[in-house]
Amino acid sequence: MIFARRRARTVVFAEHGDPAKVLRAHRYRLPKLDKGQVRLRFELGAVNPADINVIQGVYPSKPQVREDIGPEPVSIMGNEGVATVEGFEEDGEVENKLKVGDRVVMGAPQLGTWQSHANIPFSSLIPLPASSPLSLRQAATLAINPPTAWRMLSDFVPLNPEEPARGGESKSRKKQWVIQNGANSAVGVAVIQLAREWGVGTINLVRDRPSIDELKQSLTALGADHVLTYDEFLSRDNNTRQKIKEWVGKDGELRLALNCVGGKETAEMAKLLAMDGRLVTYGGMAKTALALPPSLFIFKRLVSTGFWLSNWVQTHPSERQTMMQRLAALVHGGKLREPETEVVSLAGTDEEVAQVLRNVMTRVQEGRGKKVLLHWKDE
Amino acid sequence: MIFARRRARTVVFAEHGDPAKVLRAHRYRLPKLDKGQVRLRFELGAVNPADINVIQGVYPSKPQVREDIGPEPVSIMGNEGVATVEGFEEDGEVENKLKVGDRVVMGAPQLGTWQSHANIPFSSLIPLPASSPLSLRQAATLAINPPTAWRMLSDFVPLNPEEPARGGESKSRKKQWVIQNGANSAVGVAVIQLAREWGVGTINLVRDRPSIDELKQSLTALGADHVLTYDEFLSRDNNTRQKIKEWVGKDGELRLALNCVGGKETAEMAKLLAMDGRLVTYGGMAKTALALPPSLFIFKRLVSTGFWLSNWVQTHPSERQTMMQRLAALVHGGKLREPETEVVSLAGTDEEVAQVLRNVMTRVQEGRGKKVLLHWKDE
Repeated sequence: MIFARRRARTVVFAEHGDPAKVLRAHRYRLPKLDKGQVRLRFELGAVNPADINVIQGVYPSKPQVREDIGPEPVSIMGNEGVATVEGFEEDGEVENKLKVGDRVVMGAPQLGTWQSHANIPFSSLIPLPASSPLSLRQAATLAINPPTAWRMLSDFVPLNPEEPARGGESKSRKKQWVIQNGANSAVGVAVIQLAREWGVGTINLVRDRPSIDELKQSLTALGADHVLTYDEFLSRDNNTRQKIKEWVGKDGELRLALNCVGGKETAEMAKLLAMDGRLVTYGGMAKTALALPPSLFIFKRLVSTGFWLSNWVQTHPSERQTMMQRLAALVHGGKLREPETEVVSLAGTDEEVAQVLRNVMTRVQEGRGKKVLLHWKDE
Repeated sequence: MIFARRRARTVVFAEHGDPAKVLRAHRYRLPKLDKGQVRLRFELGAVNPADINVIQGVYPSKPQVREDIGPEPVSIMGNEGVATVEGFEEDGEVENKLKVGDRVVMGAPQLGTWQSHANIPFSSLIPLPASSPLSLRQAATLAINPPTAWRMLSDFVPLNPEEPARGGESKSRKKQWVIQNGANSAVGVAVIQLAREWGVGTINLVRDRPSIDELKQSLTALGADHVLTYDEFLSRDNNTRQKIKEWVGKDGELRLALNCVGGKETAEMAKLLAMDGRLVTYGGMAKTALALPPSLFIFKRLVSTGFWLSNWVQTHPSERQTMMQRLAALVHGGKLREPETEVVSLAGTDEEVAQVLRNVMTRVQEGRGKKVLLHWKDE
């Protein structure tokens, strides 16, 4: 099959800096398809907090610098998203595994999902099962946050009954609990639902807001056992420590804390953990160091560690396949709902698009609003 | 054998509080020896920073409250020391393993080594090998700090060639390095010497002081590869990060940091570690939380953990025996020198003894001077 060199629209930056300033929109013709590459039309490109750090230049995984798409070298943004297969060169290898119209999500980091079209190597893509069709919003939010939640519940304190325990950790007979901050984040809501699916109790911390009752209800509807604001959690008047001990009870055990914020309540979460607890950090939205008392490490054998999916996937390719299939089935079966999302359409002149993007970046940096999914309108 | 009920002198506290205030000296008659107990004469009772926390009531391992030795319930101080066997009731079990005049160190926590005499269960004692006789100072400082150093070099990043690696960690072929703060502490000097014995490089951080050149020389003589003051370490002018990278070199790897202080230089130590580094905390002399950037956990797979010998010995009784024999042999062979110590004699009235103790406590709290060994003078 011979393709015309398709025109694509894309979001790029030439230099690292403030995301609300350096992003630009750009048009270019896609290069010729190489053997093994797949021509994609992106349906939705997800915006994650980590994208901010990519643009700032402080994220270890960086998009390729491209010299072939404009007058100066630029990087194309976008790590997560869903695309439709438009075609590929006649090539036995790809043909057996993919057909035009199939949906794919990204199997490698920083492939550039914030563009309308792209040529991507087949080996970097994860085809979605046609047998359990997901909505575009479901698919666009599947590849990063739910796997992060799955791994964090499985790899440190083995709470996932579908996977064998490793590293000498045996699964306890006590009912297991997990406490997490940023509980309404995309990872947080996946944690709540996977934990419910696996019989694990959750204590969920969120920021106070005018619509806090509504947020508490929505997380409870997803399966959250308890939802507290940070103020409620830290307040001495409420005697929250005691309450949490009662929730967990003598037949329960709280050994896992998940942290994407940092700051004071992270240390308080760690203090609540039983002997041999694990504090797993996967984000640092408060931009402060974790402040942890030495005594927790020495006497309560706390282990503070981190999780980054990009690291994990490099060493676990086959486990990832199995996990993605299970996650897609859970989403398809209604057991795992995607986070609340808002589709932002990109259309008009490059400058109009850039203005829309800058507003989105400001919102993401402030941690406000739903998860944004970018969609390029057809021209 | 029938013993007269021996008079003993002891250091006690009735209530937790400021170590420079609540310690008292006390005379009492030892109770009758029970079956399985051994009558000891303490030669030296060591004073460790953790003893301060015991007296303050903030240490998880507490001495027994004794109602049999005075008008009010008191706790007898002392966790580490060396004693001579004065005798035991005729008892086949003990007789086969011990004889009068043998030297023993403590095999259980908080047995009360700051007294002149005591009855201690045989099962709580570790007899020292008569074949490799140690000096009293060597023996008094053997049971806690050198084992702590041994375990921290063995259990997290496997640097000890005498023990099999565990937990899936394989020993690397690269020359291994360790960085530690409080490097002139009793644990610190054991780390330096065990590391030298095992071919591991050490980067050692100490507080600046008028006699810093002398201290650097003495640690270098023990086998320290590099010694830096905290100021030298943190200074940007000196470009110390770059220097340390050069010291470790491409054929070397720095994956272990040992922390007994806390504070700013702990985070800096952690930042220097290679991927999959381990920060092991065994003390918190700066009395501040560890402040660690989330990015180290997420992207560099830092694991921050702790070590407390009292926890470890409970689950590793036979490994401990082997380790103690090896440590005694290293000390006897001149490969492991005890830390610098000062023997403080206790004599005179109870009030005079209490005054001496309070001065010692003040010094220990300020982290000044050599390690103190208490010795009760015969009356």
